[in-house]
Amino acid sequence: MNTKKFLLQEKDIPTAWYNIVADMKNKPLPPLNPKTKKPLNPEDLYPLFAKGLVDQEVNQTDAWIEIPEEVRDMYKIWRPTPLVRAFGLEKALDTPAHIYFKNESVSPVGSHKLNSAIPQAYFCKKEGVTNITTETGAGQWGAAMSLAAKHFGLELAVYMVKISYNQKPYRRLIMQTYGAEVVASPSMSTRAGRDIITKHPNYQGSLGTAISEAVELAMQTPNCKYVLGSVLNHVMLHQTVIGLEAEKQMEMAGEYPDVLIACFGGGSNFSGIAYPFLRHKLLDGKDIRVIAAEPACCPKLTRGEFQYDFGDEAGYTPLIPMYTLGHSFTPANIHAGGLRYHGAGSIVSQLRKDGYVDAVDIPQLETFKAALLFAKTEGIIPAPESSHAIAATIREAEQAKLEGKQKTILFNLSGHGLIDMTAYDQYLEGDLTNGEVSDADIAKNIAELDKII
Amino acid sequence: MNTKKFLLQEKDIPTAWYNIVADMKNKPLPPLNPKTKKPLNPEDLYPLFAKGLVDQEVNQTDAWIEIPEEVRDMYKIWRPTPLVRAFGLEKALDTPAHIYFKNESVSPVGSHKLNSAIPQAYFCKKEGVTNITTETGAGQWGAAMSLAAKHFGLELAVYMVKISYNQKPYRRLIMQTYGAEVVASPSMSTRAGRDIITKHPNYQGSLGTAISEAVELAMQTPNCKYVLGSVLNHVMLHQTVIGLEAEKQMEMAGEYPDVLIACFGGGSNFSGIAYPFLRHKLLDGKDIRVIAAEPACCPKLTRGEFQYDFGDEAGYTPLIPMYTLGHSFTPANIHAGGLRYHGAGSIVSQLRKDGYVDAVDIPQLETFKAALLFAKTEGIIPAPESSHAIAATIREAEQAKLEGKQKTILFNLSGHGLIDMTAYDQYLEGDLTNGEVSDADIAKNIAELDKII
Repeated sequence: MNTKKFLLQEKDIPTAWYNIVADMKNKPLPPLNPKTKKPLNPEDLYPLFAKGLVDQEVNQTDAWIEIPEEVRDMYKIWRPTPLVRAFGLEKALDTPAHIYFKNESVSPVGSHKLNSAIPQAYFCKKEGVTNITTETGAGQWGAAMSLAAKHFGLELAVYMVKISYNQKPYRRLIMQTYGAEVVASPSMSTRAGRDIITKHPNYQGSLGTAISEAVELAMQTPNCKYVLGSVLNHVMLHQTVIGLEAEKQMEMAGEYPDVLIACFGGGSNFSGIAYPFLRHKLLDGKDIRVIAAEPACCPKLTRGEFQYDFGDEAGYTPLIPMYTLGHSFTPANIHAGGLRYHGAGSIVSQLRKDGYVDAVDIPQLETFKAALLFAKTEGIIPAPESSHAIAATIREAEQAKLEGKQKTILFNLSGHGLIDMTAYDQYLEGDLTNGEVSDADIAKNIAELDKII
Repeated sequence: MNTKKFLLQEKDIPTAWYNIVADMKNKPLPPLNPKTKKPLNPEDLYPLFAKGLVDQEVNQTDAWIEIPEEVRDMYKIWRPTPLVRAFGLEKALDTPAHIYFKNESVSPVGSHKLNSAIPQAYFCKKEGVTNITTETGAGQWGAAMSLAAKHFGLELAVYMVKISYNQKPYRRLIMQTYGAEVVASPSMSTRAGRDIITKHPNYQGSLGTAISEAVELAMQTPNCKYVLGSVLNHVMLHQTVIGLEAEKQMEMAGEYPDVLIACFGGGSNFSGIAYPFLRHKLLDGKDIRVIAAEPACCPKLTRGEFQYDFGDEAGYTPLIPMYTLGHSFTPANIHAGGLRYHGAGSIVSQLRKDGYVDAVDIPQLETFKAALLFAKTEGIIPAPESSHAIAATIREAEQAKLEGKQKTILFNLSGHGLIDMTAYDQYLEGDLTNGEVSDADIAKNIAELDKII
């Protein structure tokens, strides 16, 4: 076989998203009202989120949910994305493993985040919403949401984690170029922001705090909704276009993955590629190992606990059943900002609990070493987040070599790293650390959770 | 028609490059030895360039030159590239024109430059060369050459124009990530560099000076060749994969362009998309307007003269027949660094002289205004260079609206601007100027040419 890329046509863009919850025997536990500790009704979520998205969020019966034509039309800007056989990487590793990757970096904002930004903007617009708020860590989600909001004529305010706001001016400028308002978080524009600035004047921000700020602004602004780029069920749902396309492409390649790998922050790119494949594991007992690749500094699936916890730092959100390190856990400042989140979404947490999902945690230096090898052999400089998936893939490929076993590995290249070059600079200069976390630190933060529920 | 993208498969990557010289009635004038003023023989070029490339450079008889299998294999990393119908832009302009663009920004380095970097590295490697040198302005070519050199196991030194070296650290870091050595030009490592630093200690560099340095180093290093990303015939030849693919894709769309537009620096992306279409104008008298979009600060095709001139600032290169502003002309510091070059390649200069090519020059502010509209309607943030093609396209589309005439326009999106966000920042802050040039300044530089020949 001499083909490197497996390309679909526009007509092959999926017409429905895959809702894995419909096929799960053990449904995820419901989110709880933080005051009453009672399960939330959809009505409780309508003030904050567009109704169309809430209905997707709570849908436990329909395995397939139609993609609106306006959304598919915008997907056509860059979808379908290529599936690539990584011959160069295989050769460099001298491995019997066959390595494939789904290249989500070809989107105009450079990552998979646009897959969910578009439907979220679409449903807001359809319901007459005029303003939306969101938060962003490294800026991938904010950039995607800025483009989608502009397309549907919505005003967008993005709370960007302060350390990224200062260290990643390019992503901030991309959002501003698309017309969004970008605010460094913590900011003085919200109570949550003011409170934390008062307590810690030099606080560099976290995703948890930025979520608190975006939620607060949305609640106080007329005709405004809040949108989120990960964790929630409807976000995972939208991302399944990745895996649905990849399934068809693996068929073109005449192979089926033995191992499926994606990096893991809140779970959006992981769920996107994994759920369509997990469907066959759930329904037909298909033998496939699905691995979430976490950073060593934020290992909720590997070393966290399954508990109810808040999605944000200030405790504004519902309580979500998740593998978590505790909502006040602050991970080390690694460059993979998109993976610095304390919890995992409720679906993937349930799947992990039921043994359908494996996880590994990888130190920062190993991810950059893997990224450089990938850049030199496959040409694409990966995002620091995606490099976790590459590092986990290399571990599997080296294991296959040790065992002398052919094995087919598929990983998701969630984004490129062209806007993260300062991270590469620091790595090449020897200025990075592994960003690990002690058992004691994890235990302390999880212990605090007992007070919540 | 609802399709937005026209996608080819890997088998549709061209198997031969198109050599337009074979089909030109008036061949381009020969390059001259600067000392004897006699036409150069291929043998004169062998010390500097790989033999395989020189043979392509002087080939005036074969219209089709086979693409080596190793080169096509590497093209498969990102080729074929999409052709896109720009429905969003059309709607925003409310124009009857149909607008298409060829999206060369999807390459792993973000531009079309890789199309020629790969065969240049390939032919050097094939002939046993171990080291290569080159220069880069904004860094697009240097990034592409770094990736290609790494792939074929060659050591690469890149002289990067000093102002870009300092202002565009991301592109420098991309080159270093692929393993190249990057030197700010002018440097003390060459006589050409030392001479100009001695005369002008604060000189911020130019493409002309960087070429002088790269050529000098190549001549003094054993087993070393020099490679160039534009101007020369063999570079244009390699880039024709763009237009050859676009032809097939326009056929899929069921249309033929009335107008073809590309930005113009030395001519590589312009020639790449234009020559396959100009073939039908040369051979069958096909009615198509082909427009080179230049920056107002560097308008060699629009306001320069057809003359023999040096390709570099120090006068190391052969004399090339070109539309030029004079090799000592220093264009304003616009952000489209790739278009800041004093001359045009000899083929395109001859085609311009014979009336096959039109040209327009566009002030910087108009290009950024066009870029923002394109980003908001089509999702892709364009490179400042490519924005010149977009601005020219918008002019044509608005003219079509005034005339109430349907018209099909195809332009080349040579690269994305994700690594040029500081330029967008300055535009949004109102800190940019138009970067124009006076007739007197042009006349003065051209007058100096009379001393050469």
